[in-house]
Amino acid sequence: MTDPLSTWHEGATKDAILDYVARTCAEDSAEAVPQVERVAVFDNDGTLWCEKPMPIQLDFILRRLAEMAEADSTLRDQQPWKAAHERDYAWLAQVMEEHYAGDDTNVQTVGAGIVAAFANITVDQFEADAGAFLHGTRHPTLDGGYLECAYAPMVELLAYLRANGFANYIASGGGRDFMRPISDEVYGIPREGVIGSAVALAYTPDEHGGAITRQNAADYLDDGPEKPVHIWTRTGRRPVVAAGNSNGDIEMLDFTQHPDKPTLRLLVLHDDAEREFDYVSGSERALERAASSGWTVVSMRRDWAKVF
Amino acid sequence: MTDPLSTWHEGATKDAILDYVARTCAEDSAEAVPQVERVAVFDNDGTLWCEKPMPIQLDFILRRLAEMAEADSTLRDQQPWKAAHERDYAWLAQVMEEHYAGDDTNVQTVGAGIVAAFANITVDQFEADAGAFLHGTRHPTLDGGYLECAYAPMVELLAYLRANGFANYIASGGGRDFMRPISDEVYGIPREGVIGSAVALAYTPDEHGGAITRQNAADYLDDGPEKPVHIWTRTGRRPVVAAGNSNGDIEMLDFTQHPDKPTLRLLVLHDDAEREFDYVSGSERALERAASSGWTVVSMRRDWAKVF
Repeated sequence: MTDPLSTWHEGATKDAILDYVARTCAEDSAEAVPQVERVAVFDNDGTLWCEKPMPIQLDFILRRLAEMAEADSTLRDQQPWKAAHERDYAWLAQVMEEHYAGDDTNVQTVGAGIVAAFANITVDQFEADAGAFLHGTRHPTLDGGYLECAYAPMVELLAYLRANGFANYIASGGGRDFMRPISDEVYGIPREGVIGSAVALAYTPDEHGGAITRQNAADYLDDGPEKPVHIWTRTGRRPVVAAGNSNGDIEMLDFTQHPDKPTLRLLVLHDDAEREFDYVSGSERALERAASSGWTVVSMRRDWAKVF
Repeated sequence: MTDPLSTWHEGATKDAILDYVARTCAEDSAEAVPQVERVAVFDNDGTLWCEKPMPIQLDFILRRLAEMAEADSTLRDQQPWKAAHERDYAWLAQVMEEHYAGDDTNVQTVGAGIVAAFANITVDQFEADAGAFLHGTRHPTLDGGYLECAYAPMVELLAYLRANGFANYIASGGGRDFMRPISDEVYGIPREGVIGSAVALAYTPDEHGGAITRQNAADYLDDGPEKPVHIWTRTGRRPVVAAGNSNGDIEMLDFTQHPDKPTLRLLVLHDDAEREFDYVSGSERALERAASSGWTVVSMRRDWAKVF
C-alpha cells in the first residue's frame, strides 16, 4: 500500500495522524465520525505555508503602499506608508510583536492603512492582482516562488484527510480574498472553503450584473477568538481536526473539542533553521497549551522528511 | 426515463429549466458550465417555503417576545413586545409593508427587539430551540406542520440541480441559524450551504472547548444588495442559477449574470389562492424586472402540479 504521508518521517506525530484517521474513518470503528462532521480547519501563515521573513500577504501590501507613497509624497510621513516607503521592516516586525503581546495600537494604524490601500477596488480586480502577485513573485530568501512556499507535508496531509472524507477549510488571519485565487491550486481547497479576514464589501448594480467593491472599512480580523466564530459562521459545525502554529490559533484549537468524538489538534513548531526558519516568537502561549492540553506538536525538523 | 420535474406541469417554465440544465451540463454542449461554477442560490421565504400569513421565523420570534412580555410586564408597553403580547399582527404587517416601501424606521425597532430577545443564548441552544419549533409547530391555516410548508416543486428542482452537479445555497433574509437545523432534512442543503441574516457572535473559552454566544447586536440583514455580498463572501462566486420571489431578491437575481455563461433566473409568483396564497405585495418591482429582464416567472397556479 502506498504511504499516504510519504513526506512525514516515521514517529509519534505521523502515528498520531494515521491513528486518528483510522479510528474516526473506519466503518467498523467504535469511534467513527460521520462524514458530514469531518470538518478540518487549518491556519495558513506558518501552518500551511511560510510566514518568514514576513507573511506573504504583507509583502503584497507593502508593495502597494510603497507604490502609493511613490505616487503621492504626502503619504510618506504617515504610517504605514512611511514604513513601506522607507522599507522599514523593523517597525513592522515590532508591530507584529506588539500584537502578539496584546497591544494593538499600531496594528490598528497598519490595518487602517491596509484597508484604505485596497478600497474602492472590485473583488474581481483584487483577486486578479493577488493572483498575479502570488504567481509571479519569488520568496526573498528561499529558493522559489511564493506558491512553492507551501509545506509539502501539510499539502499531503490535506490530501490524505480529503481522501478520507474530511472537508478542509483554511481558517486564517490572512485575507480570505487574498488566498482564494490560489487555494485550490496549492491546497486542493475550493474557494468556498477559504475562511479568513475580510473587509466590508458593497454591491453596486449596473447593466451587466453589478459589481462588489471593497470598502474603506474592515469587516473582521479572523484571529484569536474570532476564528471559532467564523468557522462556525461558515461551516455551522465545531471541527474535529485543527492545525495552527501561533498564539492566534489557541482558540481555534481549543474550540476543536467534543465530549463524544476524538479530535486531532496539531501545532506546527518552527525548529528547522536549515530548511526553513527557527522561531517561537508569537507562539509561546500556544506551545504551553499544547503541552498542558495534549495537542500534538509537529516538529518541522524531526517530523518532516521534506519541507517544500 | 423518469421525469426529473414530475411536480411541474408541462409548459414554458418547465421547458426553460430542462433546457437550461441540458445546455449547461451536457459534456458536449458548447455552453457547458464547469461543475465548480454551477452555483445556484435560492431565497427561502416565499421561494422555497410558504411565508404567509407571516414568515415562519416571525411566528418563532413572536412567541418568544410574547413569553418575555408575559414574564415581565414592563415590556408590554414597548414595541415589538407590545404587538407580540397583544397579538397585534396588523402592526407587524404594516412594518413589513413599510419595509418594502423603503421605510425601515419600525423595522429597526423590530430588529432591535428580535436581537435582544435571543441575546446571550449559545448557538447550540438557539439551534435546539429553532429545530424544536420547526419540527413541532403547525402552520396556522394550511393543513400540516411548518416543515410541510416547503414547496414540493422547488424541493424537486433542488434535487434535480444537485443531481446535475450544482451546489445549492439558501440566500435568505431569514436567519442563517434558524434554517440550519432543518436545511438538509427539508431541502437537501447542508448546513454550510445556508446563507442568511446573522447576529453578532462571540466566543468564550472554557474547559470544554468554549461556547459561541449570540450578542445583542445584528451582524447583517441578508436582503436586497446584501444578498450578492454574502453570496460572494460565502461562495467566492457569482451564481449561474437564482430563484426569488420578492423585491428583496432583485439584486441577487441581477447579480446572477455572466457575459459568457447562460443563467437561469426564476421568480416565483404567488397566484394560487386555492392551494397557497395570492399576493404580489412586496414583489411589484421584482415582477417588473422579470418582464423587462427576461427572468422566468414561475406561476404556482399554472406551473406546479402540486404545491406541497
